[in-house]
Amino acid sequence: MTACLLYVTAASHEEALSLGRALVEARLAACANVLDGMRSVYRWQGELREDQEVVLILKTRADLADAATSRLCELHSYECPCVVRLPIEGGNPGFLAWIAAETDSVTTD
Amino acid sequence: MTACLLYVTAASHEEALSLGRALVEARLAACANVLDGMRSVYRWQGELREDQEVVLILKTRADLADAATSRLCELHSYECPCVVRLPIEGGNPGFLAWIAAETDSVTTD
Amino acid sequence: MTACLLYVTAASHEEALSLGRALVEARLAACANVLDGMRSVYRWQGELREDQEVVLILKTRADLADAATSRLCELHSYECPCVVRLPIEGGNPGFLAWIAAETDSVTTD
Repeated sequence: MTACLLYVTAASHEEALSLGRALVEARLAACANVLDGMRSVYRWQGELREDQEVVLILKTRADLADAATSRLCELHSYECPCVVRLPIEGGNPGFLAWIAAETDSVTTD
Repeated sequence: MTACLLYVTAASHEEALSLGRALVEARLAACANVLDGMRSVYRWQGELREDQEVVLILKTRADLADAATSRLCELHSYECPCVVRLPIEGGNPGFLAWIAAETDSVTTD
Repeated sequence: MTACLLYVTAASHEEALSLGRALVEARLAACANVLDGMRSVYRWQGELREDQEVVLILKTRADLADAATSRLCELHSYECPCVVRLPIEGGNPGFLAWIAAETDSVTTD
């Protein structure tokens, strides 16, 4: 099983938690880590803008990443949310097995 | 277009924001995410040291990573700043396209 | 030298710092970055659970990652800690050389 990490930004702590719960509930991710107090800088309609956001990190199987990304996009308050996928190339074998077990039977209701 | 994530540490919130603004302004990055309150542990001249730092995460094109890294090193207050590049292997197609569009015409003034 | 980043979660700031110090002391990592105030969501014995945790990010050589992961698992308060390894594919050449120099002579006492 190959695992990966999804790096997501959300508008608030509540949104990040709710997205994390939804993905773990549906077994599209094994766990979610929410880091508050992120300041983002980006260009919007030609102007540099800054916002307060929250980082959401999800650990899941690589072969579930597309389904997890689609679910995040459906649930997210942004029209085009930041969801980027970073490869996991190793780690604690027990934890990687736990990721596999926790995402074994995806529920898509 | 292949994207990547640059993980940088800065001395302060102000430095991280100023680096983020400079890279986004120059279209060397599509966006910057600043996370405060990081505690770092490292060895300096044989002694273990700890400092308060700030994490700066930049999302850009893989083929701009070297130019973005050079610009960060020029602007950074450290002599040898932490800039490490993590591969992005997928994610929300719309967001990845946005990264490409936002870094399309690098300004090097 | 190929470098990598280990993403770890710990139960407290003290635990994350102590793990970071131990790995840097033993030259199993060049540096450790601790980010507080992380909220995790996961399933435990069939129930969704949430905990306050701390993120620990370690930068080291790829060929030391397994040894570093084993040491983390020995020292960690959890039975099966999250240690996942993300590939570093480039960055500031000076900083990558610093990672190599700092992890050159691993002490395993």
